[in-house]
Amino acid sequence: MDRLTIIKVGGKVVEEPESLQALLDEFCKITGNKILVHGGGRTATEIAQKMGIKTQMVEGRRITDTEMLDVVTMVYAGLVNKKIVAGLQARNCNALGLTGADLDMIRAKKRPVKDIDYGFVGDVEEVNPNELKLLINENVTPVVAPLTHNGEGLLLNTNADTIASELAIELSNYFTTYLFYCFEKKGVMTDPEDDLSIIYDLDTELYEKYKSKGVINEGMIPKLDNGFKAKKNGVKEVLITNLENIVHGRGTRLV
Amino acid sequence: MDRLTIIKVGGKVVEEPESLQALLDEFCKITGNKILVHGGGRTATEIAQKMGIKTQMVEGRRITDTEMLDVVTMVYAGLVNKKIVAGLQARNCNALGLTGADLDMIRAKKRPVKDIDYGFVGDVEEVNPNELKLLINENVTPVVAPLTHNGEGLLLNTNADTIASELAIELSNYFTTYLFYCFEKKGVMTDPEDDLSIIYDLDTELYEKYKSKGVINEGMIPKLDNGFKAKKNGVKEVLITNLENIVHGRGTRLV
Repeated sequence: MDRLTIIKVGGKVVEEPESLQALLDEFCKITGNKILVHGGGRTATEIAQKMGIKTQMVEGRRITDTEMLDVVTMVYAGLVNKKIVAGLQARNCNALGLTGADLDMIRAKKRPVKDIDYGFVGDVEEVNPNELKLLINENVTPVVAPLTHNGEGLLLNTNADTIASELAIELSNYFTTYLFYCFEKKGVMTDPEDDLSIIYDLDTELYEKYKSKGVINEGMIPKLDNGFKAKKNGVKEVLITNLENIVHGRGTRLV
Repeated sequence: MDRLTIIKVGGKVVEEPESLQALLDEFCKITGNKILVHGGGRTATEIAQKMGIKTQMVEGRRITDTEMLDVVTMVYAGLVNKKIVAGLQARNCNALGLTGADLDMIRAKKRPVKDIDYGFVGDVEEVNPNELKLLINENVTPVVAPLTHNGEGLLLNTNADTIASELAIELSNYFTTYLFYCFEKKGVMTDPEDDLSIIYDLDTELYEKYKSKGVINEGMIPKLDNGFKAKKNGVKEVLITNLENIVHGRGTRLV
């Protein structure tokens, strides 16, 4: 099977013009088939504020009412996605911006209301690989914004880490798939202040131990849960790393 | 050659929830390959206003400075495009939202500054039909937002009527192409107050006559110039019509 690298990038890296250019340079160095999955939360919060719309977060997750759904649709699928696409095209990388609604790529279900009403937030139900496979084989690089749809005309705000792992799992049926979560740090650290404390190999046992001790903090947990799910479901390699180390394949490897 | 219908829809039709649903219903009745090209100017003006950004128009055209480029990128490629895509997917039409940057589909040149500085406005230079052909043959329906790129990482705001006619001209090399400009009226009228004054067949001679007499007004001129260009360059049929008459192929036919 051909190799496929899926890179998820979030945080400042995609949202500040300078670091975005550096990201696109690094991304273009990756040889073979690739997909870029991005976030855009900071820009969404900023645009919402300019429009007089208040951002509400619960445990790091955005409450997405009707107004906020419009904001994230504009920012993720429009502003952030198309700047990346134009930037990759300028580097001779044949990028195609997508949401889960395009090509019916990712269907999701609106999250049921329990203690908290997250609003128009979607939990992934199904990935349709048909046109995606075709495009990848045509040397197209999909750039995926964190939005899905419910198949009934409704767009849903969906966690980008989850989108990356669900795409990786489905596409591992057709490609030898590598999933890289790229963020500010070199990998998962036992001491966030000490770069030398990086965990090079993280297995589920060690993960559970660090989680129960509070060594691995809240922000990392969804990323790692998604990563371990991918690793268990056919994805060849899952790596947590930063921009500089993507090409070298260094960072925290899930084993 | 297979048939391809390109529909350009602008104005209120795509921007009000109710008329959008009616449009998508009508659009889905068209059999065979199809492309939808949309505008979004009213929504862009509205969002800009909410963000405290002033809209400047010169002769019906938007001055696009850096801030306004972000607004139109968000609104055209994000909000308007993805609502259409999700709505078509709900009707089992396999839609794919695109700008000219995606798949390097449409390259443009920033308009040179003469009397007026339009800012980041693009004049189409080249249409790349490669992946577009492939996708259309896979039964995908492209939904095109009025943005292009310059190949150097810059997105450009581009007239949707022009995008529709340039796509039609290029694709007429591969498909028997029909171009429909859809707006509020049944067609081109000699008296805008009288529906019976519709011109069923408009040739360039009659067009020049009506233009010089002021019978055909300013708003229609770019649409008709684009339409005649398409008609002269391989497009099988160009029709100016409204939503209700798309399927029946009634309206003003350019001959």
